[in-house]
Amino acid sequence: MSESDFSEPYEFSELYDLSSLYDFSSQPVNTQTKGLGQIDNDACMADIGGQGWNILREEVSLPVAVLLDERIEHNLSWMREFISRYQLKLAPHGKTTMSPELYQLQLDYGAWGITLATAPQVNAAFQHGVRRIIMANQLIGKANMAVIAGLLAQDTAFDFTCIVDSADNVDALGEYFAARQQKLRVLLEYGITGGRTGVRNAEQEQQVLEAVKRWPHSISLVGVEIYEGVIDEEAPIRAFLQHVMKRTEALALDGHFAEPTVILTGAGSAWFDVVAEEFHRENYALDAAQRYHLEVILRSGCYLTHDAGIYEKANQRILAHNPVARQMNSSLQPALQVWAYVQSLPEPGRAIIGLGKRDAGADAGFPVAAGHFRPARSGSVGYTTVVPVPQEWKIIKMMDQHAFMELPQGADIEVGDMLLFDISHPCLTFDKWRQLLRVNEQWDVTGAVTTWF
Amino acid sequence: MSESDFSEPYEFSELYDLSSLYDFSSQPVNTQTKGLGQIDNDACMADIGGQGWNILREEVSLPVAVLLDERIEHNLSWMREFISRYQLKLAPHGKTTMSPELYQLQLDYGAWGITLATAPQVNAAFQHGVRRIIMANQLIGKANMAVIAGLLAQDTAFDFTCIVDSADNVDALGEYFAARQQKLRVLLEYGITGGRTGVRNAEQEQQVLEAVKRWPHSISLVGVEIYEGVIDEEAPIRAFLQHVMKRTEALALDGHFAEPTVILTGAGSAWFDVVAEEFHRENYALDAAQRYHLEVILRSGCYLTHDAGIYEKANQRILAHNPVARQMNSSLQPALQVWAYVQSLPEPGRAIIGLGKRDAGADAGFPVAAGHFRPARSGSVGYTTVVPVPQEWKIIKMMDQHAFMELPQGADIEVGDMLLFDISHPCLTFDKWRQLLRVNEQWDVTGAVTTWF
Repeated sequence: MSESDFSEPYEFSELYDLSSLYDFSSQPVNTQTKGLGQIDNDACMADIGGQGWNILREEVSLPVAVLLDERIEHNLSWMREFISRYQLKLAPHGKTTMSPELYQLQLDYGAWGITLATAPQVNAAFQHGVRRIIMANQLIGKANMAVIAGLLAQDTAFDFTCIVDSADNVDALGEYFAARQQKLRVLLEYGITGGRTGVRNAEQEQQVLEAVKRWPHSISLVGVEIYEGVIDEEAPIRAFLQHVMKRTEALALDGHFAEPTVILTGAGSAWFDVVAEEFHRENYALDAAQRYHLEVILRSGCYLTHDAGIYEKANQRILAHNPVARQMNSSLQPALQVWAYVQSLPEPGRAIIGLGKRDAGADAGFPVAAGHFRPARSGSVGYTTVVPVPQEWKIIKMMDQHAFMELPQGADIEVGDMLLFDISHPCLTFDKWRQLLRVNEQWDVTGAVTTWF
Repeated sequence: MSESDFSEPYEFSELYDLSSLYDFSSQPVNTQTKGLGQIDNDACMADIGGQGWNILREEVSLPVAVLLDERIEHNLSWMREFISRYQLKLAPHGKTTMSPELYQLQLDYGAWGITLATAPQVNAAFQHGVRRIIMANQLIGKANMAVIAGLLAQDTAFDFTCIVDSADNVDALGEYFAARQQKLRVLLEYGITGGRTGVRNAEQEQQVLEAVKRWPHSISLVGVEIYEGVIDEEAPIRAFLQHVMKRTEALALDGHFAEPTVILTGAGSAWFDVVAEEFHRENYALDAAQRYHLEVILRSGCYLTHDAGIYEKANQRILAHNPVARQMNSSLQPALQVWAYVQSLPEPGRAIIGLGKRDAGADAGFPVAAGHFRPARSGSVGYTTVVPVPQEWKIIKMMDQHAFMELPQGADIEVGDMLLFDISHPCLTFDKWRQLLRVNEQWDVTGAVTTWF
């Protein structure tokens, strides 16, 4: 599937032009971090694409995390189409990348807003121009409330919601924002026994609703939030989603929501298809009642870079079962990889790689070598292209700055060879990098993005 | 033990005054990261200590990583004394913190230099004024060689060494630096079968020594390096250290070293006492031969903040067995902790904490709750001090931004309570933070340090 398949206007988007809000290109390059080539200390981010660096020519310090331009664009288009066909909206979870340049791309491709997890993350996105944010978390503590209160005061058009799941928290928020004569918009979170946050039963739900009523001037309930990703099986996820839809409808009919548009939001990156199916607007009676308009917002964040591990596994399930994904006849592609050097070959069957826990996530499986390149050097002509890596070359252990690779005795590998790794999962790889390079299919560096963890 | 016990001049130090090389105080505050209070966007690092923030007054956004001033000073003094009694030198591993302000402290307390793991790390330290660096790793790849060549060209007094363990790497380095008419000083690394990098046998050793001889104008062998931390047991560590000492002596007597001072360096943070014992200069015949002067340099990096997990376990062994540590009658103290909020109490026996894998290392055990504080709020007077946490309150799982805590039903805990966590290990907690706050024993914020990962 090519980009052009998705070229028709996206009806549901409200395209943000962040470039008018924030000038990414003039941000200074952090020249004291990893994964860069030689560049002036006073260079700005826009200069990186013009340096003419190529990864295979060894013009960039390894290890380096790279974003594959073509695949990123493919994934953006894929998700725009998927969301469009379900007539839903998307507020991709920005905690995945914490990169405002990538938020801009996501918004340019029709995202409704950006989801974030903490008050400092919301601040970082706001300072880079994002003005519609779901904080899919409770807002706890005075200093965190102060961050949000400050942003709301700074721009009265800032569209912000966060979630609540306890009367204690609602009361703390009610008191804090009432003292500042500000109004905080909140979503009631439903959870599941054994899961993460969210009310578990009718009693907790009632307590939260009563607490909301105690703060009519400072707390507005504007919708419902869930995170289904803590459940491992499809059947209980569907049952949970159906329960939440019924509760949303009941709360609406009972007049609990403060605005005519009711937000219903869910979906991590593993089960977004199931959430899309269940939350599809045709499932709802709300609009028929003509009292509320329902806004269903998915929050998958990892689609942008996808991965070759846990999310690829989810992807296979989606391709097998989701009718829309099957019609689209295409799927997400891993777009975040890490290049590293073979540093030492100290004994037969073992390579030490210059790639550590500080360079790539290791909690959802070790990085998997996908490509091998040998730069030319005295006495060795080198490769002309990146070649596949035998499956037997496996990382079996990682330390802070090193990976231990097991490989067959006699494997064709040399100190100074370059290995390209697929990673899983992206969230815990992005946070290892303060800048990531963008590359094209020839491994030319086309630009870079910053992260703000 | 108080600081004053160690107040006599430290004979072996060459105190660096980094303040003349780099002005830390005027660095801008990164106001778009986590763990800060309200501060002007144009504030500089020196302003943080003057804001009057107190953690218990909820004037800082949680989660926040804090460095405990008194304990940091204690640990600096402890290690200065330990190293001094063994008449050794210290080049603490700077990859632990990647914080130049902390390097300055370590150098002020007598460190000989700083150890680092990669060329970009060396660059970050150099740009912040550090001028004596051991890169305890192989220098692989043209862009990484270019980083080091650039620094050597920038300051001819820059005292830099890196390690080699293969003839291929020596030849690559020899060719690269010869082309630039520069000389690279290297240490031969010895390793152990089943371990990480380092030559394993006499044949590999000979190949490296021969390669060094091929590049007399660009490669100088100036010493020997080992990392014993890949071995789990004391007896094989001692045997390995003794073998390396014998090889160092043999190489010296055979005239392999290019400078009159021979560097012998080892020690991670778990076995530095054993390395100190074995490498103690009285064990050597080298000086007696009066041909070389031996410079033994330990590289422990985690002593600065210590921890309450793997390194505290090592500490208990050291206190039980090391005669110098026993004489000192004192030990390292955990000086890096993380504060986080109780975010949700969704069901009996479970608390969800606002503390994720992105805030604290989780690979050497989950963070352990050590303190509990309840801020005053309407309907609750709060605590006047931080109280200990029952051992039964345990983190059992972490996600990117959340921790799952198990606790007895009926535990006295509320949403919005603050929990103080001990962490293990420090390296994988430091790299989650771009700035860490310094605090005194009253939890007043006294300043902050930057990190450059």
